[in-house]
Amino acid sequence: MSTVKRVAIVGGTHGNERTGVQLIKKFELCPDYVRRSSFSTQVLLANPQAVAAGLRYIDRDLNRSFERDRLQNQTLTSYEDRRAKEISQVLGSDSSAPVDVILDMHSTTSNSGLTLIIDEENVFTLQLATYLQQIHSSVKIYSTSCSGRKQDALRSIARFGFCLEIGPVAQNVLNADLFQKTETLIHIILDYLEQYNRNEVTLLDRSLTLYRYLEAIDYPRNEYGEIQAMIHPQLQFNDYEALHPGDAMFLTFEGETISYSGTSVVYPVFINEAAYYEKGIAMCLTKKAQVIV
Amino acid sequence: MSTVKRVAIVGGTHGNERTGVQLIKKFELCPDYVRRSSFSTQVLLANPQAVAAGLRYIDRDLNRSFERDRLQNQTLTSYEDRRAKEISQVLGSDSSAPVDVILDMHSTTSNSGLTLIIDEENVFTLQLATYLQQIHSSVKIYSTSCSGRKQDALRSIARFGFCLEIGPVAQNVLNADLFQKTETLIHIILDYLEQYNRNEVTLLDRSLTLYRYLEAIDYPRNEYGEIQAMIHPQLQFNDYEALHPGDAMFLTFEGETISYSGTSVVYPVFINEAAYYEKGIAMCLTKKAQVIV
Repeated sequence: MSTVKRVAIVGGTHGNERTGVQLIKKFELCPDYVRRSSFSTQVLLANPQAVAAGLRYIDRDLNRSFERDRLQNQTLTSYEDRRAKEISQVLGSDSSAPVDVILDMHSTTSNSGLTLIIDEENVFTLQLATYLQQIHSSVKIYSTSCSGRKQDALRSIARFGFCLEIGPVAQNVLNADLFQKTETLIHIILDYLEQYNRNEVTLLDRSLTLYRYLEAIDYPRNEYGEIQAMIHPQLQFNDYEALHPGDAMFLTFEGETISYSGTSVVYPVFINEAAYYEKGIAMCLTKKAQVIV
Repeated sequence: MSTVKRVAIVGGTHGNERTGVQLIKKFELCPDYVRRSSFSTQVLLANPQAVAAGLRYIDRDLNRSFERDRLQNQTLTSYEDRRAKEISQVLGSDSSAPVDVILDMHSTTSNSGLTLIIDEENVFTLQLATYLQQIHSSVKIYSTSCSGRKQDALRSIARFGFCLEIGPVAQNVLNADLFQKTETLIHIILDYLEQYNRNEVTLLDRSLTLYRYLEAIDYPRNEYGEIQAMIHPQLQFNDYEALHPGDAMFLTFEGETISYSGTSVVYPVFINEAAYYEKGIAMCLTKKAQVIV
């Protein structure tokens, strides 16, 4: 890509993740906060009905509604299907002014800290991630390039899509500290894009640590689909920490420990995300990797 | 009261508070866990439709639906109004077998720790609270005797109603540690009632610390009712800690601190409870008190 011309900052893709919703309101009131000289910035509250209802979604998960087939299927008329088509027409590749970059702000009940989710490991994306980690060393990079999220997420309709996952914070709660950290990350990324356009990016260290998606792990369930165990207290809030074969993973309601039965060290993320119970995901396992950008 | 004859353990009064829901399921499968020889114990999932939907309630807050007038008003037919009437007919004073004690299990996104809420400061209640604190020193006693909760809560239909508020935990999340602690408290209370019936209660210390409700504080809001500030990071998760005049209370979205303007030391609780945004409650202020039981 020569230069970044259009950037969209998105919040409220999930209506009960208040951090992004409130930041969009702030940016709408004061567009100067997110204005930069070398590209245009637009802000979008993605799922206003879900925001008003304080729910993740009304009919279906908006952030799983952007597969090309769905967008082209006129028989799909749920609220989120209609909203996905509207958003795609405004921001997507078929729009008259497609955005180059989408920054989608999310929050999670898992201990994600400050996570940047990248769906592709191309040079542009990896350099941005490296810069972010250079400025803010606690930022974690979670690569979902093997998970299929490139196909269905809102951010997938831009050439380069990024997701900020900030946690832990309960659904429908504003945490001031995480609100400010999310805003800081948005500014760092906007500043980076400005530097990128001016060819002024300086990466002090070209080594990047990232966590690559391996597989999703469900809760133990009975024949009726009811969960039979909880995240083990030793694993709760331990996102991005090494989980070794034999380590405690779940605790049954009767107090019995279920251990990790894998054969290699993994790094779980999205541990105990509230919205993932219904998706059959207790956590996502990742592999820690070092790449040279 | 001479002896306790009937006890009800209730969970899922709010459908998105999973701890109580899961404990009810456990007790339904193994009634022996909550059986004691000197009284009968029944368990109740209070709001099954809200539990199935993963919502606090369907039409209205069930735990604000037990005023006597509401229960007698046949024109009120919302799901929770109907459910309140059903529950009252089974457990309440007009039932053929009214329960003496209700233990209602709740969870909160605030840092409540292990809180026992009492709505009346009668001898039976205060002695139970003292015993609980004697066994489990971290238990906090929150007295709402001045707040009106005695009139509308589910627990109000029993002669003695108690609420366990365990947190912090996000809505729709099971935290194994807090699940086990809630279960432990239930067992301590059941054992206490057994001792009470046998006249075997021993209180080592008759001094009880409790936190008495003073008033609810709302978020700063604009003319449209939209919140204009968040709980200040210095106050977040500081439930039951002293808040002095001039201490930081809120943080505006622009980063400005709003201080506590009261003239005396208070002890906030329910700080940043997710469900209370819609109720206009950012926290409840309490006064710390020492009583001799």
